[in-house]
Amino acid sequence: MQALRVSKRAINAGRCLSTCSTLFAKKTLTIDNLNPHVKGMEFAVRGPIVIRGSQIEKDLAKVLLIKANIGDAHDMGQKPITFIRQVIACVAYPELLQSVAIPKDVKEHAQTILKDCGGRSAGAYTPSPGIECIRKHCAEYISKRDGLPCNYEDIVITAGATEGIRDVLKLFVDETAPKKVAVMIPIPQYPLYSATLDEFNLGQVRYYLDEDNNWGLNIEECERALEESKSEYNTKAICVINPGNPAGQVLTRKNIEEIVRFAHRNNLFILADEVYQENIFDKNSHFYSFKKVIAEMGGEYKEQELASFYSVSKGYMGECGLRAGYIEFTNLDPEVYKMFNKMISAKLCASSLGQTALDCAVNPPKPGEPSYDLWHKERRSILESMKQRAHLVQEAYGSLEGIECQSVQGALYAFPKLHLPQKAIEAAKSKNVAPDFFYGMEMLEATGICTVPGSGFGQKKGTYHFRTTILPQLPLMKEMLDRFKPFHANFMKKYK
Amino acid sequence: MQALRVSKRAINAGRCLSTCSTLFAKKTLTIDNLNPHVKGMEFAVRGPIVIRGSQIEKDLAKVLLIKANIGDAHDMGQKPITFIRQVIACVAYPELLQSVAIPKDVKEHAQTILKDCGGRSAGAYTPSPGIECIRKHCAEYISKRDGLPCNYEDIVITAGATEGIRDVLKLFVDETAPKKVAVMIPIPQYPLYSATLDEFNLGQVRYYLDEDNNWGLNIEECERALEESKSEYNTKAICVINPGNPAGQVLTRKNIEEIVRFAHRNNLFILADEVYQENIFDKNSHFYSFKKVIAEMGGEYKEQELASFYSVSKGYMGECGLRAGYIEFTNLDPEVYKMFNKMISAKLCASSLGQTALDCAVNPPKPGEPSYDLWHKERRSILESMKQRAHLVQEAYGSLEGIECQSVQGALYAFPKLHLPQKAIEAAKSKNVAPDFFYGMEMLEATGICTVPGSGFGQKKGTYHFRTTILPQLPLMKEMLDRFKPFHANFMKKYK
Repeated sequence: MQALRVSKRAINAGRCLSTCSTLFAKKTLTIDNLNPHVKGMEFAVRGPIVIRGSQIEKDLAKVLLIKANIGDAHDMGQKPITFIRQVIACVAYPELLQSVAIPKDVKEHAQTILKDCGGRSAGAYTPSPGIECIRKHCAEYISKRDGLPCNYEDIVITAGATEGIRDVLKLFVDETAPKKVAVMIPIPQYPLYSATLDEFNLGQVRYYLDEDNNWGLNIEECERALEESKSEYNTKAICVINPGNPAGQVLTRKNIEEIVRFAHRNNLFILADEVYQENIFDKNSHFYSFKKVIAEMGGEYKEQELASFYSVSKGYMGECGLRAGYIEFTNLDPEVYKMFNKMISAKLCASSLGQTALDCAVNPPKPGEPSYDLWHKERRSILESMKQRAHLVQEAYGSLEGIECQSVQGALYAFPKLHLPQKAIEAAKSKNVAPDFFYGMEMLEATGICTVPGSGFGQKKGTYHFRTTILPQLPLMKEMLDRFKPFHANFMKKYK
Repeated sequence: MQALRVSKRAINAGRCLSTCSTLFAKKTLTIDNLNPHVKGMEFAVRGPIVIRGSQIEKDLAKVLLIKANIGDAHDMGQKPITFIRQVIACVAYPELLQSVAIPKDVKEHAQTILKDCGGRSAGAYTPSPGIECIRKHCAEYISKRDGLPCNYEDIVITAGATEGIRDVLKLFVDETAPKKVAVMIPIPQYPLYSATLDEFNLGQVRYYLDEDNNWGLNIEECERALEESKSEYNTKAICVINPGNPAGQVLTRKNIEEIVRFAHRNNLFILADEVYQENIFDKNSHFYSFKKVIAEMGGEYKEQELASFYSVSKGYMGECGLRAGYIEFTNLDPEVYKMFNKMISAKLCASSLGQTALDCAVNPPKPGEPSYDLWHKERRSILESMKQRAHLVQEAYGSLEGIECQSVQGALYAFPKLHLPQKAIEAAKSKNVAPDFFYGMEMLEATGICTVPGSGFGQKKGTYHFRTTILPQLPLMKEMLDRFKPFHANFMKKYK
């Protein structure tokens, strides 16, 4: 790993504008008058460790850097699903519909989509809530998943779940309200939530997940968090990430029911981040959608307001770069929905080719169709391999001194707890960084493994973690663990 | 046109959520506590006339509706550029790199892009400011256009110019400022600006374009608008759309210089919406970028802050559905740029396939390469046809009683002025709608032509306009004018 100790260039060297100079007169837009909420935002998933990682990658051969910081399967060697890419290629370049090399069902999928595109071209703006047949396929997917009816008009296609979550959170902004409006978020959480709430100037009510109970969601803790926030905030919504990011837990049905009762009792809108619904690795875990649980609870709960999010970036597809997902609204006030549609219309639409990938994810080949066997094989192989890697990571980290790792039941991450020696904590303090940031930067410099410190997701005071993905392919994953173990042992020894 | 008078369903019938009912208890999120800035937004380009148009389209055969409301070339029959679509197909489905049917230079373009994608897959997240080689190609394009150096690190790739403009406007939000922060916008303007300023709670300082001077930009008018706003606002930026949307004017170099002096004198950041830079139809007009003019003015002006926007949705490509564009920053404070990069990192990235389309637009085939001839022919044929249609529209509208139409020098629109009879104005008032909205809705119902009323863009009080695109292909354009003329004559007669 000696080679990785490259000369340090300033992390932000690449960020300076060439045309700028401090010799010039005062700017109109400066750091002092910049949008204060933009200044306040943090997004650790692409934070300083990752920026430094990219620097190292530029300086060295690419294979050395292991980007375990972000849920980006293809970047870590996962191959695309052939069916998805063939359909996209045909929609983009319809001359391929004449090609004998393209299976018949692929062509039919592409033709169905093109028929719903303006001028039969992916180059036309789509309707703002998405291409109609794709919304219908999303509804069929949900209906099949839940065993319940689903209306396609409740579905809005977005440029990834990120955009959907941001658009829904935006609805709650109201600086004219007597008390500041706030949203409950889990801690640890995916930092899109905290960053967006900061950007929108919405309050955060943080409920802590129960690490000792495999990151379960404890309703007493939710009650505590909400109760304590009441003097300062008017809390209107609760975000739940299931399966969990960064902690990889999968909520039990009972737990979901408790959350629904809690939300209903306290008039909270539920934002259910269900983008990892296909990533379940624990044999005793099962994915239940909030929508299904709410419907089956019935009675007073059946009117619970809910927005559920889905993404092609996760699951077995891993198509992060194509930017597509959907929101399904349940029980949203129709007047609010009209305003939502007006709001998104100013942004025009999500990418037609991203929407095509979404179509393939929710409407894959069926048994007997020419593409089915290959699709099935590719999908199963990816999910099986992810399962293996989930177990491998958990066992490897769990076996080391000074690390505890809960079961990776689902999603794409492990979030091991670090028992950092006091000297390491002091060394971090002397550098004015969080102790787990210090650990993560040392790890990067020594091993080329890029992770995200627990402080980027939030954690109980005095605890330290890091998030790693399970996405490096098996040989690289084994290499990652081989690099990690001696680093960790040395670190613990050095600061003992 | 009798067939178009279909039974009227409520415009919003399709918008109601199936799972909602007014019988339920009070919602958490209602129209009363919804984000007031979302409630206040208007975006007429996809407003009620368009919604009604879609309804008519569903009820009737598609060919009858002429969507002249939005700059959506492919929806109006323009064919995609073969080169762009071939490169996208190869990036999406790299097996095509083996195909003998794909030209060599297409394959090379695709391979260059794939080399810069994580895991050599379009499914990987790209860096937040975009795929590096594509940013470099943008810089080369700009450099060639202006005859000036351009640094790729000043370029951020976005999911269309819309996203870029919104992200830059967001930087100016500062509700802690003693006076409300405001941005100058032209009237008439593309309503993305007013909608976004409303959404972000930024003030609008409106400067009126000079219709009698072919929608030129009059600096005295800018001074007046700024001066009058001073008691209420702290104005920090000026938006300029050149070539103009909705009015189709092209600024002279002298006019741009005046704007730069005005901005510099008043410490205004310039947002230059230059998405129509390749759409120049008037033989006496020429596109000058703000960047070039500023650089050539030199002296005290060379430090002028500027953001320029580009899009693959316009030009000859018309790839609206692929969602890609770029921002080029000039003289942005480096500290602000760091914050900007942090802010966009929370949204991850623009679509890799959209970025691929952008690459093709800024880095097209060169003479001698296998794809050059076809690309050149397709491009020239589109631009020639647009030019013809620009003249056709202007002549046709200009020849009618009660309509004045300025020269369509560039962009994709005409913005004719209507001299509406008093009785029509009264009829509109009795229906509680703007007079030009009334005219536009009557036009839609009678002819199936979808336009946008001038009130959606802003206009001088007491004047009425509509915006029409020049995008219907020639036969449809002729049909459009054939449908329009009798409608207009009847309308004028009816309300005489």
